[in-house]
Amino acid sequence: MYEKLRGVRDFYPEDHIGRRHMHDALYATARSYGFKEVTTPSIEPLELITKKSGDAIVNEIYAFQDKGGRDICLIPELTPSIARMVISRQKELVKPVKWCSLSRHWRYERPQRGRQREFYQFNVDILGVRSSRADFETIACGIDCMLSLGLDNFRFHISDRTLIEQFFTSHGIDASQAFSIVDKRTKVNEGEFRDMLSGIGVGDECYEQLEGLLSLNGPIHETLPEVKETLGACGAHADDALTTLEEIGSLLESYGMDEHCTLDLSIVRGLAYYTDMVFEVFDKRRSMRSLFGGGRYDNLIELLGGQPMPAVGFAIGMPLLELLMREEGTWPEPSFGPDYFVVTIGDVEREAFSLIRALRAKTTVEYDLSGKNLSNQMNLANSIGARRVIIVGERDVKSHVFTVKDMETGDQQQVPMDEFYKTLKE
Amino acid sequence: MYEKLRGVRDFYPEDHIGRRHMHDALYATARSYGFKEVTTPSIEPLELITKKSGDAIVNEIYAFQDKGGRDICLIPELTPSIARMVISRQKELVKPVKWCSLSRHWRYERPQRGRQREFYQFNVDILGVRSSRADFETIACGIDCMLSLGLDNFRFHISDRTLIEQFFTSHGIDASQAFSIVDKRTKVNEGEFRDMLSGIGVGDECYEQLEGLLSLNGPIHETLPEVKETLGACGAHADDALTTLEEIGSLLESYGMDEHCTLDLSIVRGLAYYTDMVFEVFDKRRSMRSLFGGGRYDNLIELLGGQPMPAVGFAIGMPLLELLMREEGTWPEPSFGPDYFVVTIGDVEREAFSLIRALRAKTTVEYDLSGKNLSNQMNLANSIGARRVIIVGERDVKSHVFTVKDMETGDQQQVPMDEFYKTLKE
Repeated sequence: MYEKLRGVRDFYPEDHIGRRHMHDALYATARSYGFKEVTTPSIEPLELITKKSGDAIVNEIYAFQDKGGRDICLIPELTPSIARMVISRQKELVKPVKWCSLSRHWRYERPQRGRQREFYQFNVDILGVRSSRADFETIACGIDCMLSLGLDNFRFHISDRTLIEQFFTSHGIDASQAFSIVDKRTKVNEGEFRDMLSGIGVGDECYEQLEGLLSLNGPIHETLPEVKETLGACGAHADDALTTLEEIGSLLESYGMDEHCTLDLSIVRGLAYYTDMVFEVFDKRRSMRSLFGGGRYDNLIELLGGQPMPAVGFAIGMPLLELLMREEGTWPEPSFGPDYFVVTIGDVEREAFSLIRALRAKTTVEYDLSGKNLSNQMNLANSIGARRVIIVGERDVKSHVFTVKDMETGDQQQVPMDEFYKTLKE
Repeated sequence: MYEKLRGVRDFYPEDHIGRRHMHDALYATARSYGFKEVTTPSIEPLELITKKSGDAIVNEIYAFQDKGGRDICLIPELTPSIARMVISRQKELVKPVKWCSLSRHWRYERPQRGRQREFYQFNVDILGVRSSRADFETIACGIDCMLSLGLDNFRFHISDRTLIEQFFTSHGIDASQAFSIVDKRTKVNEGEFRDMLSGIGVGDECYEQLEGLLSLNGPIHETLPEVKETLGACGAHADDALTTLEEIGSLLESYGMDEHCTLDLSIVRGLAYYTDMVFEVFDKRRSMRSLFGGGRYDNLIELLGGQPMPAVGFAIGMPLLELLMREEGTWPEPSFGPDYFVVTIGDVEREAFSLIRALRAKTTVEYDLSGKNLSNQMNLANSIGARRVIIVGERDVKSHVFTVKDMETGDQQQVPMDEFYKTLKE
């Protein structure tokens, strides 16, 4: 007997019902926003991935040589491939490019709750426009993705990296180093956090102001003036970011989604490639780590060899989403049974099989494949959860009727064949 | 600029419309037969694949070591993984197990028309029952898969390997060697074919009889008596296979699918693991190579470490199916446009965005993300193929109306807002 590899998952039918529901809901939501489905290859040149994420990522992914000696890898995320696809048709594509994709990804990491080596992720991206509307559209689609899964125990924590960047710059501190420290804030204790900041030159006063900023967290419109004031006090200028956030806040309000959002300057996202607006989604009690996140990445297309092109997007991982749905009770119960199970008595092959075919054009039908007797056919119908049984017997056929039994109520009735077929056609 | 790898494909939105249609149709067909969706990992221990197909397959697939030093591979087909999943729950699963899966596969082969290094395949399998009904059910589902895609220029060539096996055995010739030669029959010329057969001891008389059998090709019921006679004349016994084929033929007739099938003893399928019924699908003119195939494989589960368990199934590759659909004109034309495009004039954010959200609960809506003026908004609506435009202007808002324009007819009318929302709710 062979075992599957560690960190991968077999989806049996009972896992699949929920999975299909989840995938369909996400796609339907993105489609309603005008996002179009794309699919990228699962294997890409390794350089495409390292160019975006740095060489160190090789240690965390499935990288190998193909038989032609090319360094390739299983894609750990979608964005580099999306960028490659956009770049190769950059001129022809109508802007904005609005794409979504539900894809498989692979990372060679220690498997843990909600984190697997092989997993699905849903990506949504808008390329070719830099505006608060595009930022809003991305956030709104993310919120509707959650709502479409019956989830409402979540909050989008929104910020703009340039706010914290301007803050550090105004204090003469290198912002790129600071970002990765701020990103670790909730993962280390206060002493460690302060030490790391001291290491890059953050003094006491600066630290106090920073803590003031990072602990601001509330409705966008109410919180923005405080942010403005604090930043202004240290001589930091971030007017564009403040305006964008204000517009995003206003759009979210007009759209009726402001209740799901909070301004939270502690969100900077560690990844180097984000440029402006960033967000992370948490459950309201913050009992789990960040559910997913996204933001604006205006430099990536150029970095990967395209003409400069702004971009904004997010990616949701399915494993964590499934965990959340199961916890919230919105993961659908598997229900498998076919609508009909056709039972045969005697030599009624012709009548039974024309019936089965006609039914299958409309719905789900099963029947016994192994020559069982009547009572064993009924048992099978029962054990697979068939909703109705149609009995086709030799005597029934002579009198041109089917016997239809409702397996839930036990009701049983004879229906003239032509009447049954007539109803079926309607 | 980065290029994709050779033999893989980027699915842009215009490729995706057809792809989604194809996938949905195949799933819907299999579901109507009671097949349940499963998904296997894309990576498996290499040994699972070589155990089924032999060590030589390593040269044709993406095999590599992971960071833990395990020999793993990208799966070149689904069957070993399906077998592994069945075996690991062999006792609990209700029989028959009826599974389907649309999965990605990888083979390191020279890319050619309809054959790629990375491709999707649709698998349908019934495990746990050996019967002509299970064989029929598999074939019928395969036929309905083709019909569901609007294809009817195809024929299922059905046989049973034991017929040819018994024929060779009755002549004292090793059947396993003979199968691979018979499988090459249409790929070599007559002289080469005869030479290869001579090489394993096929004499002139045996060759003539074999050619007689292999050239039989016609409706199952009409052709079976001839097969029986020819086999009987050489003392070959294949009564079970003949009975099974007769029953399959009768079921196909009752089901109304016999027109799509032919008995063709030249179909043996090269793969070692098929045991009894086998089939291959060709376009009627046989202008293309085999479109796909399947058959019964009753020994695989035991070979891979399970309890003996009969099985029958097939796999259709998407690249060839897409080619066929494009040739037959059943590949759907891409049509992208959103149902609505909302155009704004002046400060109408609140009204426009509540409208957009309400519409998106039902359908597809886009709007300008970059602050365009009225005429450029109309141009964008036009260039993305929006079916209707709703103009929300400051004056309209004051008089509580929307202006709705049909982009096809050019008709434009004012609709009171409350009436519009009322219609939307219905």
